[in-house]
Amino acid sequence: MRALLLDERGVRLSDDVPAPTPTRGEVRVRVSKVGICATDLALARGYMDFRGVPGHEFVGVALAGVHRGKRVVGEINAACGGCAECLAGRDRHCPQRTVLGIAGRPGAFAEELVLPERNLHVVPDVVADEAAVFTEPLAAALALREACELVPGTSALVVGDGKLGLLCAHVLHVHGLDVTLVGRHPERAALTGAALRHAGALTNAARGFELAVEASGDPDVLAELVTHVRPRGTLVLKTTSERPSALDLAPIVVHELRLVGSRCGRFAPALELLASGAITVERLIAARYPFADAPRAFEHAAHRGTLKILVDVSP
Amino acid sequence: MRALLLDERGVRLSDDVPAPTPTRGEVRVRVSKVGICATDLALARGYMDFRGVPGHEFVGVALAGVHRGKRVVGEINAACGGCAECLAGRDRHCPQRTVLGIAGRPGAFAEELVLPERNLHVVPDVVADEAAVFTEPLAAALALREACELVPGTSALVVGDGKLGLLCAHVLHVHGLDVTLVGRHPERAALTGAALRHAGALTNAARGFELAVEASGDPDVLAELVTHVRPRGTLVLKTTSERPSALDLAPIVVHELRLVGSRCGRFAPALELLASGAITVERLIAARYPFADAPRAFEHAAHRGTLKILVDVSP
Repeated sequence: MRALLLDERGVRLSDDVPAPTPTRGEVRVRVSKVGICATDLALARGYMDFRGVPGHEFVGVALAGVHRGKRVVGEINAACGGCAECLAGRDRHCPQRTVLGIAGRPGAFAEELVLPERNLHVVPDVVADEAAVFTEPLAAALALREACELVPGTSALVVGDGKLGLLCAHVLHVHGLDVTLVGRHPERAALTGAALRHAGALTNAARGFELAVEASGDPDVLAELVTHVRPRGTLVLKTTSERPSALDLAPIVVHELRLVGSRCGRFAPALELLASGAITVERLIAARYPFADAPRAFEHAAHRGTLKILVDVSP
Repeated sequence: MRALLLDERGVRLSDDVPAPTPTRGEVRVRVSKVGICATDLALARGYMDFRGVPGHEFVGVALAGVHRGKRVVGEINAACGGCAECLAGRDRHCPQRTVLGIAGRPGAFAEELVLPERNLHVVPDVVADEAAVFTEPLAAALALREACELVPGTSALVVGDGKLGLLCAHVLHVHGLDVTLVGRHPERAALTGAALRHAGALTNAARGFELAVEASGDPDVLAELVTHVRPRGTLVLKTTSERPSALDLAPIVVHELRLVGSRCGRFAPALELLASGAITVERLIAARYPFADAPRAFEHAAHRGTLKILVDVSP
C-alpha cells in the first residue's frame, strides 16, 4: 500500500509498504484524512529515533467488525489490558502499550491502519471528516478536566496560541472559565468561535490566575508562568520539550502551587463536544494536501506558527 | 530583654533588645522553649538577607488575653485579615503577612514575643513542653493532607530522614499508608514510634510509588524521584532550596504526574495528634541548651544530620 515513511532518507512516500495485519480484537481502517501534529514534526526531526509510518490524528472507515462501513476515529494508545495500570483504569499508561504512529504501531499516513476494535469510536453524522480529524487533539485539551477541577468563573491563562493552545483555551471557555490567551497571533483569539481575551506577551498578562496552562512547547515559559499563578493555584503542562528546564522550585513550595502533567484524553467527550457545535475547529485548518503531496505538507507544517495541515489520504 | 540576634556580626546574644510591643489584637508571650529549624540555619547563612531575632518553633506562656497564664504555641503567619487571600481562607498566603522570626516580626529566640491572639493555641496538659515545641514542624508534615488525598494502603516514599522527613513519614504511617523512608540514617526509622521501612539510598527504593515526598532539601533529588512514582502519581515538595533544579519536564507530562508544593500547616490537628500519643516526638531531640548557650546551639544544629536542637529560654 501507499504510506508516508520517516527514515534515514527523510520524509518520503512509498508504494511498497506492507499493509498492517490485524491480530485478535483488532480491525483494519481505511484512512480518509490525517492531521499533522507537533509530535509528528518532532518524530521527523529524529525524536525517539522514530522509523516508520507516523500519524495519529485521523478519520477513516472501519473495514471490519461491529463498526464495518462506518466513519470512525480511534484512541491512539493500544494497551495490553492485563497489567496493573490497565486494571487500575490507567490503560493510557500501560507500559506494554503501543501508540499509533508513535511507538510500535504503524500510523495513519497510510491507506490503511490497524487498531484494537475497542479503540474505535463512530463519528456522529453531524461531524464532518474535517472536524472529526480534530478529535484526538480536542480530547487532549479536554484532559484538562482530569488534571484539575474546572470551576466556572475562575481565571485561567493559556500560554501558546498554536493548535493545542487554542483548543485548550476554548475548552476552558466552554467550561465557564474566564480565559486569557498568550501568544504571537492575536488574530487567532476568535478562531474557535469564542471571543477569547488575547494578552499578546506573557509580560502583558495579569497575575493571580487560578489556573495556567503551558501549551507553547517552550521549556523556559514555566519559570515565568509560576509568577502569574495565585498561591495554591494550578499549572498544567500540556507539552513536552526536547530539552530540560532550569526551574527554581522555591516558589512552588512557598506558594504551594500544583504542577500537573497532562497528555492524552478520552475520545467520547471530544466527539460529543464537536457534535454539540459548541466548538468550531475547521477554521484551525491552514491548508489541505493530497496524499501525493504529503512530504510537502510536512514541510509546510514545520513553518513556525502554522495551524493545522490536513492530508487527504483517500476520498 | 535578652534575645538572640542574627546580623552582620553573626549569631549572638544581646541583653539590650527592646521587647516587642503588641498592637490591637496581639498579645505578649513569655517564651519557654524554642527549636532550631533548617530555616533558622538558612537565615543565619544570609537567606532572605535576614536581620533580627529568629525563631518560630516555640512553646510559651500567654501574658495577656483570653489565654493569659496558659501554655501556648502559635501559628507563625500573621495575616492582614482583609485581603483577597485572607477572605478566601488562604491567610497563610496573605501578601501583607508577617512571619514570626522570618519576615517582619521578631521571633522566639527571645524572652518575649508578640503574636495576634487568634494565632495562639492552648497546649493540652498531656502534651509536655518538649513535645509542644514540635507543633509547628508537625503541622507542616500534616499539611500533606492538604497537598493530596492520603489513601490508606497506598505506597508512599519519603526522601530525607531529617526532622521534617521523619515527621512526614510518621504522618503518612498514621494515615495508613505503606511508607518507605530514604536517607543516611537507617537507625532513625523507628524514632517516631512507627516501624518505618528504611531503604537507605533512593537507588535501593522500589518504583511505582503512589506518592513521594521530597523532604531532603537536595534540589537534585526531584529529577531522580520522578522515576520512582507511578503514572498519575503525586510528588510533594516539602523543602525549598537555595539553588534552582535542572528538571526534565517531559516525564511529568508523559506520565501525567502531579507536583505539589507544601509549606506550613494548621496547628490544631498537630496538637490533637500529639495529645493522642499516636506520635512520639521527644526522641527527635538531639540536645538541649540553656539560653546563655544559644549561639553554641546554632553551631551544633548546623552540623549535617543533626536532629532537633532545643533552647530553654525561661524555665
